[in-house]
Amino acid sequence: MRVVVLRLGHRPFRDQRLTTHVALTARALGAEGMILAERRDAELERVVEEVGREWGGSFWVEGGRPWREVVEEWRKKGGKVVHLTMYGRPLDEVLPLLRGHDLLVAVGAEKVPGEMFELADHNVAVGNQPHSEVAALAVFLDRLFGGEELRREFRGGRKRILPSERGKRVEFL
Amino acid sequence: MRVVVLRLGHRPFRDQRLTTHVALTARALGAEGMILAERRDAELERVVEEVGREWGGSFWVEGGRPWREVVEEWRKKGGKVVHLTMYGRPLDEVLPLLRGHDLLVAVGAEKVPGEMFELADHNVAVGNQPHSEVAALAVFLDRLFGGEELRREFRGGRKRILPSERGKRVEFL
Repeated sequence: MRVVVLRLGHRPFRDQRLTTHVALTARALGAEGMILAERRDAELERVVEEVGREWGGSFWVEGGRPWREVVEEWRKKGGKVVHLTMYGRPLDEVLPLLRGHDLLVAVGAEKVPGEMFELADHNVAVGNQPHSEVAALAVFLDRLFGGEELRREFRGGRKRILPSERGKRVEFL
Repeated sequence: MRVVVLRLGHRPFRDQRLTTHVALTARALGAEGMILAERRDAELERVVEEVGREWGGSFWVEGGRPWREVVEEWRKKGGKVVHLTMYGRPLDEVLPLLRGHDLLVAVGAEKVPGEMFELADHNVAVGNQPHSEVAALAVFLDRLFGGEELRREFRGGRKRILPSERGKRVEFL
């Protein structure tokens, strides 16, 4: 099961920090990469690469392709497209339909084209209240992987945290 | 069990969007309110109040008290203080110690005072990789409430979403 995040509607500068949170959340919670629709963002790519060098793993970010093309290609290859939106069906109901499939998980910034609702295989709500695409993605991935994603090892980095009750313990590799 | 979020290190303007995501995530995933340490932020309060008027519930935001004072008062009243940090102990291990207690859940912006690690009852990691305080809070609350939080009703708002497979269905109350 491959899981890739598709970030829609990213505006350079204005959305940079939030999109960085989306990318790092995707990485830490088990997605293999993130596609930034329509454009590239060199600063975002730099930050994510730097995190990978420091902390390991093989998470990637790419950008610059129109979102419809990404969605259509994913479906052509047999994967499913899931759009996270407060208007969608409850996560609990949809999750059983997703397991075992390759998933492209679309998360919007403030405005998402209406067409996304049509092209997605499933519109999924992490609660039907307004909150945050970062939070929605986090809960979605945690439920999808059943918590296993937090125990994964990220290999090849320069350092690793040694979990502790107090303070910051880091091992340099 | 009361759950209140304590937002540390918020800088006006620079952190406004992320802190808004923290607040709305806290609200949507079952916390009763959020305390913004040290300062108030009128714009943030306005946004959260507006969301409450539209979508219901009784979530509150307050600000302006020093974080140590908030932490000490919470503990004096018998509650526990949980600090979410990538350096902490795994969520799985700590969760059983938390259920049934009133929880103050501290989440930082970029820099958190070292003293927070000492004053917290538990330093808890939602994975030991860098990601997002919004994501960490979301997974923490979802695990704490076991998914029940997404089924809560928010009463007294002006509208409500009717979950659907396609499009946006909203009922005006």
